Amino acid sequence: MTIDTVGFDADDTLWHNERYFHVAQQRFHDLLAEFAEPHTTEEVLLQAERRNLMLFGYGVKGFVLSMIETAIELSDGAIPASQLQLIIEQGKELLAHPVELLPYVPEVIGELASTHRLVLITKGDLTHQETKIATSGLADLFWQIEVVNEKDPATYSRILGRHSIDPSSFVMVGNSLRSDILPVLDIGGRGVHVPYEITWSMELAVAEDHHDFVSIADLSELPEVLARW
Amino acid sequence: MTIDTVGFDADDTLWHNERYFHVAQQRFHDLLAEFAEPHTTEEVLLQAERRNLMLFGYGVKGFVLSMIETAIELSDGAIPASQLQLIIEQGKELLAHPVELLPYVPEVIGELASTHRLVLITKGDLTHQETKIATSGLADLFWQIEVVNEKDPATYSRILGRHSIDPSSFVMVGNSLRSDILPVLDIGGRGVHVPYEITWSMELAVAEDHHDFVSIADLSELPEVLARW
Repeated sequence: MTIDTVGFDADDTLWHNERYFHVAQQRFHDLLAEFAEPHTTEEVLLQAERRNLMLFGYGVKGFVLSMIETAIELSDGAIPASQLQLIIEQGKELLAHPVELLPYVPEVIGELASTHRLVLITKGDLTHQETKIATSGLADLFWQIEVVNEKDPATYSRILGRHSIDPSSFVMVGNSLRSDILPVLDIGGRGVHVPYEITWSMELAVAEDHHDFVSIADLSELPEVLARW
Repeated sequence: MTIDTVGFDADDTLWHNERYFHVAQQRFHDLLAEFAEPHTTEEVLLQAERRNLMLFGYGVKGFVLSMIETAIELSDGAIPASQLQLIIEQGKELLAHPVELLPYVPEVIGELASTHRLVLITKGDLTHQETKIATSGLADLFWQIEVVNEKDPATYSRILGRHSIDPSSFVMVGNSLRSDILPVLDIGGRGVHVPYEITWSMELAVAEDHHDFVSIADLSELPEVLARW
């Protein structure tokens, strides 16, 4: 079946994201340098993020709260409140960071918007995602925009059902195998994987070869892939 | 035009919410008692919430971050990290609190689901809202569920447009004049106001008399109001 609807992930697919988290995390390691080695801080923070995921969900605010918990834990409560305020400030910087589009994004999205129905499917903090979408300059090119809490097969089925999209006519484009590609293959759709320069530990996944899934280096290759299907 | 679609707010309309925030805030006042009078704490916290709203949006995580900022500010940085951890724990309690339905909710929602299309429209933290919806036992009675970042006329127009709902056949039921009633009247819909025992300072609003808007004491009165229209 020919593809008529293209889903796009947003963070690290249309615009930079993980890069800023990476910088924030480096600064966090520095802030805690007197209490712990960087690799310990990294490990304890990841544990906190995993522990808190069910309650906090994805996004900057939960990340900040997990950093604060980690700082308190690693310093055994000795960290001064002023340092914790710095962590909050850093979170605010993350939230206020201007959107930086990835290469070829405006051209390719603009081109495909005239031939396909485009759906933006992004997970994370609602306020932050909506702010980024609004300031990206791309919002009007999308037919539908969905901010979701988790990207699993049930979520994709719900979205496709809601908009009467046949999975066999749908392809999802994104940087995360775990969130953007595998669950869509699961429900009978196709996937185009566009790796980003950094993958967050919680997004790591391994994919076996699959005939309905291809990898491309950047979005400039996407129109040709779609034309081939 | 007869009403065929009924929108429902969730927090403090279908289930208790503000009550738990109120308790959390009382405990926060106690925690800061050595640094500030309760009314000062309340005022500085509200300032922080207003200041942070654009970046944080609504919900528990932003509330916790604003409480932490307020504690640091009022103690001039002297508050021990262990006390800040208590504030985070309290936030987790809020997030994990079981859903307690308001009186008549299951009966009335169950009854109306057989005669009208029901849409749940709630604002706040995506993860928390979805958890509450999932555990409320009501999810299957709703035709559509929308978690939004802000409840203004543009948001309601977008939702109604997306599901091809004519505003003149739509009524919104909720506890907040500012978020649930006035913006819906603005776009040509109707409103049923069901006040809750507490109104958050940021939701306060005044409504003038309006023939498309009624107030009821609890949800048991809703079917009769709808039958009348």
